[in-house]
Amino acid sequence: MAVSVPENQKIEVILETNFNAAFANVAEALKPTLHEWIDKPQEVIRFVPDEAAYFKWRAERRMTIGELEKHEWTKGDDFIVDFGGHRVGYLSFHLGAVGVNIDAPCRLRLVFGEVPTDVAEDLHPCNTWISTSWLPDETINVDWLPTDVSLPRRYSFRYVRIQVLDNGPKFRVTFSRLRATAVSAVDPFVPVPTFPLADAQLRAIDAAAMHTLRDCMQSVFEDGPRRDRRLWLGDLRLQALTNHATFAHFALVKRCLYLFAAVPRTNASLPACVYNFPTLRGASDYIVDYDALFGVTLAEYVAASGDLETGRALWETALGSMRGPLAHIDPDTQRFVGARTSAWKFCDWAEELHTDASMHGVILLACKKLNALAAQLFPDAPAPFAGDVARMTAGAAGFLREEEGQEPLFVSGPDAQVSWASAAWLSLSGAFPATLAKRALLAALAHPTAVRPLTPYCFHHVAEALAVVGAERECVALVREYWGGMLAAGADTFWECFDPLDARRSPYGDCHNNSYCHAWSCTPSYLLRVVLRDWFEKEGMTLR
Amino acid sequence: MAVSVPENQKIEVILETNFNAAFANVAEALKPTLHEWIDKPQEVIRFVPDEAAYFKWRAERRMTIGELEKHEWTKGDDFIVDFGGHRVGYLSFHLGAVGVNIDAPCRLRLVFGEVPTDVAEDLHPCNTWISTSWLPDETINVDWLPTDVSLPRRYSFRYVRIQVLDNGPKFRVTFSRLRATAVSAVDPFVPVPTFPLADAQLRAIDAAAMHTLRDCMQSVFEDGPRRDRRLWLGDLRLQALTNHATFAHFALVKRCLYLFAAVPRTNASLPACVYNFPTLRGASDYIVDYDALFGVTLAEYVAASGDLETGRALWETALGSMRGPLAHIDPDTQRFVGARTSAWKFCDWAEELHTDASMHGVILLACKKLNALAAQLFPDAPAPFAGDVARMTAGAAGFLREEEGQEPLFVSGPDAQVSWASAAWLSLSGAFPATLAKRALLAALAHPTAVRPLTPYCFHHVAEALAVVGAERECVALVREYWGGMLAAGADTFWECFDPLDARRSPYGDCHNNSYCHAWSCTPSYLLRVVLRDWFEKEGMTLR
Repeated sequence: MAVSVPENQKIEVILETNFNAAFANVAEALKPTLHEWIDKPQEVIRFVPDEAAYFKWRAERRMTIGELEKHEWTKGDDFIVDFGGHRVGYLSFHLGAVGVNIDAPCRLRLVFGEVPTDVAEDLHPCNTWISTSWLPDETINVDWLPTDVSLPRRYSFRYVRIQVLDNGPKFRVTFSRLRATAVSAVDPFVPVPTFPLADAQLRAIDAAAMHTLRDCMQSVFEDGPRRDRRLWLGDLRLQALTNHATFAHFALVKRCLYLFAAVPRTNASLPACVYNFPTLRGASDYIVDYDALFGVTLAEYVAASGDLETGRALWETALGSMRGPLAHIDPDTQRFVGARTSAWKFCDWAEELHTDASMHGVILLACKKLNALAAQLFPDAPAPFAGDVARMTAGAAGFLREEEGQEPLFVSGPDAQVSWASAAWLSLSGAFPATLAKRALLAALAHPTAVRPLTPYCFHHVAEALAVVGAERECVALVREYWGGMLAAGADTFWECFDPLDARRSPYGDCHNNSYCHAWSCTPSYLLRVVLRDWFEKEGMTLR
Repeated sequence: MAVSVPENQKIEVILETNFNAAFANVAEALKPTLHEWIDKPQEVIRFVPDEAAYFKWRAERRMTIGELEKHEWTKGDDFIVDFGGHRVGYLSFHLGAVGVNIDAPCRLRLVFGEVPTDVAEDLHPCNTWISTSWLPDETINVDWLPTDVSLPRRYSFRYVRIQVLDNGPKFRVTFSRLRATAVSAVDPFVPVPTFPLADAQLRAIDAAAMHTLRDCMQSVFEDGPRRDRRLWLGDLRLQALTNHATFAHFALVKRCLYLFAAVPRTNASLPACVYNFPTLRGASDYIVDYDALFGVTLAEYVAASGDLETGRALWETALGSMRGPLAHIDPDTQRFVGARTSAWKFCDWAEELHTDASMHGVILLACKKLNALAAQLFPDAPAPFAGDVARMTAGAAGFLREEEGQEPLFVSGPDAQVSWASAAWLSLSGAFPATLAKRALLAALAHPTAVRPLTPYCFHHVAEALAVVGAERECVALVREYWGGMLAAGADTFWECFDPLDARRSPYGDCHNNSYCHAWSCTPSYLLRVVLRDWFEKEGMTLR
């Protein structure tokens, strides 16, 4: 039952999959029926330049939808409709024609926007190192007007820009019955338990976080319904945590756990992401911390759902997923040493981040979560990772720097790099007393040259760590500043990345390829509803 | 039963339709089931510049289809497949993917080419005064690879250019099972009666003419399956004549006659074209000569098919369609005077053409054809247009110029314009003895400043007129030169327009919006099989 880690053995990324058809069948049987609902656009808008706005564009009403339905358009015209909020789904409309002869096809370009820059600016050319095939624009030709038009692809959008590239000189076109058929594994009409928080900003953050999660919950927990659109392990863990506290769609979490378990590598490691269209397969991407987060996700799922059967079924998978991560623990120092393999250690997109300390925290946390799961599943057996927890707790001391007259700091690497990520994960790992961890974490956050997080994924772990070590007030302040900052910038759903000072910042070279409804941003609902719940009550911030 | 023409009354174009639901229902019931067949591409080619080629491009083999199916393509790549000949139909293929992660959609551009310039050059920007929505290119996004791709729209093509606009950096794409599902109202596997002509060039012209007609025979006789794609009256007449001599698909001709008869204007005139998608309606276009050609088409249909019932059912429609044309006959001179109305007199796209003489010929021919039809339908009644034929035959003399020591000429307008069109239509009308008409027609063809035809539609009438007046040898020479010229330039099917000296000539400003399978070009099969048949036998040019 205990995982045996071949010490001193370098592991490298292995691509061959031990496909587990039984697990794949379980996942397939759990495929959710998607809920569909119809949304109507709110108004026709235009974006005008505005230096004061985060995206440098301000929406102005151009006409009502009633006026739109009477308006006639021709070659060169375009307009933007605002659906008033973000959704994932399909677009349809009636394309009418007015004129003596409707004697040519109509060529339209449609751009689906999550944020103003998507539709107020040209998407092409796009200076991005990932594929421009992700850009949300379509050119369509409609042969016979008038007709109903339904676009077959799914989009992620609040705005739709429609350009009439050409019609014919003898007629003009009209647009009516514009409809979005939104889809989600979550029924939007089933109310979510409301956490009775009095604070208006935190209530709005909670609502946007749930909106983000709902729009990412499709046939799997997608990381971003606009781009990527697939299941990543680290992202799944954060979505599952938030789902447990909100929609409680346990079947979807179970399905996703089985999807990963169906495609282990021959060395028992799990791919960082799986593709489930057109057929199930694991990606070539392998991320050490994501591998370790499988067991964490499984343990948290079993704890939330009480589904011990799934816990037992996937136990061996969880054990296998720890082999690769634990192989990075140096047998002499008992510390994580990234250089032991060439595998990807993610933790954040911040390029300069030294990840050894963070990774040590992730893996130690995973060992503890699996011990807790084992106690539920096999109450009479000894804790399988007891030895690992002990040695890694001891080894963690190597990441702590305490100097006379200074606050303690968690450091990583030969240059003793201070980062928010290292401090967050070592705090979350519980390797240190909370009072010490709190001091070290706050010291990292106040440190002038500390490496700051780039992604909401990393910001989440910092926020949760703050709450865990007793710095709830600072946690709430971070939630207000970071996720509240996105809301203030106009977000309907939380984003893949957020730089308060630069709306054009992108991990991909061009912000037009960013995703603005991204699952790893959805955790404020988990933080507010679970992690901070007792503290809010103590502070008298709850209603009732 | 005789048509009463309000003399001295100017008529103008009337748009209101007296919709005839009973006729529309007859047409609907005659809607053909389209035959479908699968064509495979022959090879992958590239076009290289070649000043000696008509289109200035020469095809070279790039790879076999077997090699294509193994080839991997990525962003920026493109290739052209050659299906070896023209067809109208649908494209499908299997889009494969090879790589460690197939982690992005694939964006493709597809261009459907009838001729080399369509795929060897960029279609955009297109300097055309008709709609660029006719251009045969599509941009599609395919979400999940590998997958089968079927384009839902119909195209008219021999070549398909496929450009990989973007895929993803971690995979390459493959193309296999490229298939065209061709469609036509004509079953391509039912053999057409072979006219036993020995001459190889004329046999090739006949085959291309039938190919042209077949690809235009869809749910109606389309004028061009690439662009316009609808039923025009003057074009229908030429297609019907050729159809009677080849495929003998009489039901489709009957359907098209009923479609026109279903949408007469309130003044009994017929629209020049009808749209039958999404619902039946007449176009706003009104062409005087096309109106007069309805009765001609009906008469020729009844003569070929023996379907007297349709002749009787549409007799009143035919009478009505003569009112507008005959209202142009000046009661004093008994000659056609175009200035009596603002209505469009077509005859040809040659802009400088003065059409009065041609129109006089069209209408006189129509009167005679309707008299002949009446004799079949109502053998005991007097010829309904006997008076019109008499007065217009007399009036036709006003278009003849005979000068001492010179060949006779047909002239039109105040400047006594000489044109091939005037000479052709007055010859076809039979207003003059054949010997005189032959001299005048040949004189026009030899005349240094005569207005020459721009369209195959007009060239047809010149060719037929030559045969009718006894200049069969010159008719055959014209067929060889004009339609044979298109074959020599690389045509699979005959074109909308053809200038032997300028491949870029276009009625629409840009040759990329030309149509290269155009119904009014299909008449050589009619000329060779019907009009010239006896002469070929007499000349010993037939086999057997």
